[in-house]
Amino acid sequence: MKFVIQRDQLISSVQDVMKAISAKAAVPILTGMKIDAKVNGITLTGSDSDISIESYIPTEEDGIVHVEQIEEGSIVVQARYFPDIIRKLPEKTVEIEADSSLNVTIRSGKAKFNLNGQDADEYPKLPKLQTDDSFELQSDLLKSLIKQTGFAVSTMETRPILTGVNVKVEDDTLHFTATDSHRLAARNVPVNDVSGQFSNIVVPGKSLNELYKILDDKGEKVEISVTSNQILFRTKHLHFLSRLLDGNYPETSRLIPEKSQTKLHVKTKELIDTIDRASLLARDERNNVVKLTTKDHQVLQITSNSPEVGQAAEEVSVQAMEGEDLKISFSSRYMLDALKAIEDDEVIIEFTGAMRPFIIKPANGDPILQLILPVRTY
Amino acid sequence: MKFVIQRDQLISSVQDVMKAISAKAAVPILTGMKIDAKVNGITLTGSDSDISIESYIPTEEDGIVHVEQIEEGSIVVQARYFPDIIRKLPEKTVEIEADSSLNVTIRSGKAKFNLNGQDADEYPKLPKLQTDDSFELQSDLLKSLIKQTGFAVSTMETRPILTGVNVKVEDDTLHFTATDSHRLAARNVPVNDVSGQFSNIVVPGKSLNELYKILDDKGEKVEISVTSNQILFRTKHLHFLSRLLDGNYPETSRLIPEKSQTKLHVKTKELIDTIDRASLLARDERNNVVKLTTKDHQVLQITSNSPEVGQAAEEVSVQAMEGEDLKISFSSRYMLDALKAIEDDEVIIEFTGAMRPFIIKPANGDPILQLILPVRTY
Repeated sequence: MKFVIQRDQLISSVQDVMKAISAKAAVPILTGMKIDAKVNGITLTGSDSDISIESYIPTEEDGIVHVEQIEEGSIVVQARYFPDIIRKLPEKTVEIEADSSLNVTIRSGKAKFNLNGQDADEYPKLPKLQTDDSFELQSDLLKSLIKQTGFAVSTMETRPILTGVNVKVEDDTLHFTATDSHRLAARNVPVNDVSGQFSNIVVPGKSLNELYKILDDKGEKVEISVTSNQILFRTKHLHFLSRLLDGNYPETSRLIPEKSQTKLHVKTKELIDTIDRASLLARDERNNVVKLTTKDHQVLQITSNSPEVGQAAEEVSVQAMEGEDLKISFSSRYMLDALKAIEDDEVIIEFTGAMRPFIIKPANGDPILQLILPVRTY
Repeated sequence: MKFVIQRDQLISSVQDVMKAISAKAAVPILTGMKIDAKVNGITLTGSDSDISIESYIPTEEDGIVHVEQIEEGSIVVQARYFPDIIRKLPEKTVEIEADSSLNVTIRSGKAKFNLNGQDADEYPKLPKLQTDDSFELQSDLLKSLIKQTGFAVSTMETRPILTGVNVKVEDDTLHFTATDSHRLAARNVPVNDVSGQFSNIVVPGKSLNELYKILDDKGEKVEISVTSNQILFRTKHLHFLSRLLDGNYPETSRLIPEKSQTKLHVKTKELIDTIDRASLLARDERNNVVKLTTKDHQVLQITSNSPEVGQAAEEVSVQAMEGEDLKISFSSRYMLDALKAIEDDEVIIEFTGAMRPFIIKPANGDPILQLILPVRTY
């Protein structure tokens, strides 16, 4: 195997693939990165038990040559060293060569590295997804879906199914839902051309988080395919394969209150800043609890109280308020996560009493729903 | 106590003073920050057992009003909460008020915080330095001295005196010297108007490191005064007081070889980049050892070898070389620290044999000396 490649292209691909490689992989060869050189281009592969990522660098694209002097072949390099070496090389091009004794030589300018490689034949074959169940999304929309729901997954392994995001397509609508049983985040988008049956699946939150980091914001097309136990996200240069979580995701629709007793319309940033300040004095106490009190349909007050330290209080003006006055306490962290996920200048908050879950929605725009369970305080 | 202050000024002072405050201070009140309001300005004080920092914000300076509505008084606030609160306040001005029950009220825009304060009378009095032994330096020069020597102090408590930087004035020359017994860094600068006897002292490396972060780069005057156990760095707005280390600093001048067998003249950045790359394959092995070999008075070669991983080799062109050919091994980390401390495009390296300490100096410019002990490799 041999090729000469543009260093910047290689660095970018290496960084993507590294997101799937763990130094603690149970199978030793998975601590390495596979390099496949073909006449048409170079493919890098990284994998742990949950995620596999393939990044493809075509020999030529849009008239620009990325790879030259290709002699076909494959090798596995040590992922602990390879990325740093590539990153620090002196010149814009890199020559990578592997001989039949699995010695890898990396040359750039006057710098020369010899690395002990491993046999690519010993690298596990990634499953080829055989499925017709697929649909397409723009990468920026997919990133929004992940950002607006992924934070709400559970980080506790006590209910493993809640560590994933529930993804389903019903009636040409794609639903993303996540909950850790104290809060819930959901977002819907319309999809077209859904081929085959796309069932109700649960994708690990960690996988989506890594996918989020790799996808670009340029609105590239992402093709999403699913089998019974895996999901594949495919772009022009990237294959991102994740296992799915086993089990049935709980039915969440009945958690969402249908009518409200108190409805507030407020400016998002003002509320975020105020809760952020009040949370400074709620850090050690009862899960960062702050209290919201409405006053005469004019303002709402955010307060926090830490007996050892002190109190904070601040008023937020209300754009509009309907229904009964209210006092309610909640986790400032959950509330800040929810408000930051809503990409709208104004939000509607609907309460059905001090001990009932409340929901937060953008005042205009996308169908995002954030739900938070209040905290009992006496 | 009461005053209204520009928030940006306050944030900057609070950040400086925080560098002396430890959440783990043995005396509980030292986990707090003292605020003194006088008609002329506000003084913030922070201290642990080693360092005390006072930052002064004058009421008015260069026609700009920083503080208004001053009612004199003092209070100690909890340093764990106060800086974050000030940083996140909504408006450009902050009102701070303390009542006789030690309640502190912080107001800015609609935000209001009440904090439990502590009695400023219980805050330890900082020693007033009674000394005529002082001299002046520009702050940017002082920062250079710290940067070029401070990294070489020992981090081991086995010889506490080596955790400090040796500072002395002899014949109108200021000497900064640090060594951890494997390498040494020294820098001299001429000083004028040294009043009184300025003896041979040892300043904790940690103190100088904090001072480095606080001093500005604008070439402000710093007055340096010393007593038998403390050193005070004083600028217009800052008092930085550090204890000195007890004990005699070892005589280091005899460590420095007087003549050399091999003398190399090389470009600093090229050598840094090459050693940095070679060190990638020396990470886990014998203290990051790399090997330097001269070749025919033309080039030098930097190599590293990690049996499990591979080898690196790269040539660096030599501007000039005198004396015998040489093979020598050394810690890449020490070498990189030393080369980065030399703010010159070219360096002279003088060797007196493979097992003797070697020295690195700027080819032109300031009297900086870096010394490194080689590593024995077989």
